[in-house]
Amino acid sequence: MDFLTKKIPDNELKLMYKDYDSLGFGMIYTDYMFTMKWTKEKGWEKGELKKYEPMSFDPASVVIQYSQEVFEGMKAYYSEDGRVLLFRPFDNAKRMYKSAERLCMTPVPEDVFVEAVKELVKIDKRWLPKEKGTSLYIRPTLMGTGVALGVHPSPEYNFCIFITAVGAYFSSGFNTVSLYVEDKLVRAVVGGVGDAKTGGNYAASLLAGLKAEKEGFSQVLWLDAKENKYIEEAGSMNIFFVYGNKLVTPKLTGSILPGITRDSVIKLAAHLGYEVEERNISIDEVVKGIKDKEITEMFGTGTAAVIAPVGGLCYKGETVYAGDNKVGKITEELYNKLVNIQYGEDEDIFGWVETVDTI
Amino acid sequence: MDFLTKKIPDNELKLMYKDYDSLGFGMIYTDYMFTMKWTKEKGWEKGELKKYEPMSFDPASVVIQYSQEVFEGMKAYYSEDGRVLLFRPFDNAKRMYKSAERLCMTPVPEDVFVEAVKELVKIDKRWLPKEKGTSLYIRPTLMGTGVALGVHPSPEYNFCIFITAVGAYFSSGFNTVSLYVEDKLVRAVVGGVGDAKTGGNYAASLLAGLKAEKEGFSQVLWLDAKENKYIEEAGSMNIFFVYGNKLVTPKLTGSILPGITRDSVIKLAAHLGYEVEERNISIDEVVKGIKDKEITEMFGTGTAAVIAPVGGLCYKGETVYAGDNKVGKITEELYNKLVNIQYGEDEDIFGWVETVDTI
Repeated sequence: MDFLTKKIPDNELKLMYKDYDSLGFGMIYTDYMFTMKWTKEKGWEKGELKKYEPMSFDPASVVIQYSQEVFEGMKAYYSEDGRVLLFRPFDNAKRMYKSAERLCMTPVPEDVFVEAVKELVKIDKRWLPKEKGTSLYIRPTLMGTGVALGVHPSPEYNFCIFITAVGAYFSSGFNTVSLYVEDKLVRAVVGGVGDAKTGGNYAASLLAGLKAEKEGFSQVLWLDAKENKYIEEAGSMNIFFVYGNKLVTPKLTGSILPGITRDSVIKLAAHLGYEVEERNISIDEVVKGIKDKEITEMFGTGTAAVIAPVGGLCYKGETVYAGDNKVGKITEELYNKLVNIQYGEDEDIFGWVETVDTI
Repeated sequence: MDFLTKKIPDNELKLMYKDYDSLGFGMIYTDYMFTMKWTKEKGWEKGELKKYEPMSFDPASVVIQYSQEVFEGMKAYYSEDGRVLLFRPFDNAKRMYKSAERLCMTPVPEDVFVEAVKELVKIDKRWLPKEKGTSLYIRPTLMGTGVALGVHPSPEYNFCIFITAVGAYFSSGFNTVSLYVEDKLVRAVVGGVGDAKTGGNYAASLLAGLKAEKEGFSQVLWLDAKENKYIEEAGSMNIFFVYGNKLVTPKLTGSILPGITRDSVIKLAAHLGYEVEERNISIDEVVKGIKDKEITEMFGTGTAAVIAPVGGLCYKGETVYAGDNKVGKITEELYNKLVNIQYGEDEDIFGWVETVDTI
């Protein structure tokens, strides 16, 4: 693809951040961003790689007024053999395509999405730290930038991508977190937009997230909106319950985000010989399973943590712990195997890894 | 309040639009806008009246990424005796306050909200057309303008207000519209943010809205998300069913927007001697009521139309019409009484009208 590049003079490049371990998520942004505009008249125009900087929006634009926006989250990794890698970027492109359709937006062609991500990572690759566990977090975003105050799809879109450098997620050790089961507030409902990666789902989640943090828990665990009974997903992860050698995760009913890490864990676990069930699973079944020690491990899956061991669940004021609140064996095995694939150390048996560039 | 004003030189003011009848909604914006910033460090800073123009946003800001935004819709009217009027502005201020709390945003103090609206209307009043039925549509918007990529409330907010000049809603006559009853897609669910005026609800509504339009209907009529059975609200209006001398409207369950026009109609109708019921009302009951001619009139309420006569409902492929698809007597009576109060022609018995300025 023929992108336009506005090269930043060397003396205007940002100073590099040195201490990645103390770096929070989303604190440091790289030099460049990618933007590409769509209009009814011209379709997709040429993309542009340019300095990361604020963008100009009409206050009446559809993204500001009616939150017509979808996004993706993905990472770039350094491999030991000196390559820059992406993990399943075409699946992010596909999911954003679907999200855009649900939100009545002009979708970004999948090959354009992936090529734009690659070009941005290439021009920003000095930001990619080399320590294992570190990465660049990439945020492709599609926004309705036109004005349609009468509640209609935007006549104009902007596809932008920016990057933030992130330290190792488990820099203080691969430890469990506990979740707060929210039984009043809900995230999404079947027939709504819960399976699209769109801002409104996240705005709707803020209050329950704060409540969980206030109670001392790292994230919410959401229940379904119809019966407040079936487990859906955690604040920023899908969730898995391990029964001995069997993994159970909520099936995708339409209100759950179809996580790419979730899908990877399902495929990887099956390949490793574990039984995997995608089905409705009630909070009562889970609490009983934990108390009866049938549930031996729990973990969440998502782009940020890859796999986050979950120790406890707080439901109606009572916190129950699986596996003595320790990281489970299967959790650790899946984490190591998946990370090794992502960092190009294990064989890419599923064809998930995409090389951006060789240093 | 001590607002800052950046006076636009007379020769830089926009040319006035002359033909209000052919003016669509949200096409023409006035000269000025109001903005006011909040930060953790300084709290609310001084507000500013300045030229209406695009605003600058970090692409990683919470309003762009996670749709942390709430807004209001309200109108300014010219009265025959030469005053500029607002209708129940403190109720808009109160609703935005509540919406902001639900979305974990720093709310705008209610008196600041109303005073800012008044100051903006005053400086922009040359845009207010004098013909009855015309008005200025005012859009206060509160946005999370800070960066918090880890899904947290914004550390910074911007409260902005802008205005669009609107022609008479019923310029081609006070006629009925028909609604498409959506029985798969949903707008909101109890426990979510359906009773907050936030962008995500509107993004989620776009697909069903397009579907309704494609089928030839002016708006969606939403059913509840749990049972797909009880009527909630229309695309941009609350809904009323008239049974002889009784008005029935869905009660506010938590997933329905608490419309200010809805509340005004309830109070006005009761004052006029009609019985008003707020209760759950199923689509089956309504369809039967229309077929049995028990439902004699239907109408929607909202800021844009005030009262919009509804003739037909299309449910599961069948369209049924109440009152022979004509504008009902009670609908017309309520419309005229309410509009006369809004335009300062009838006595303001409820204390709803606020004078901005006298010409």
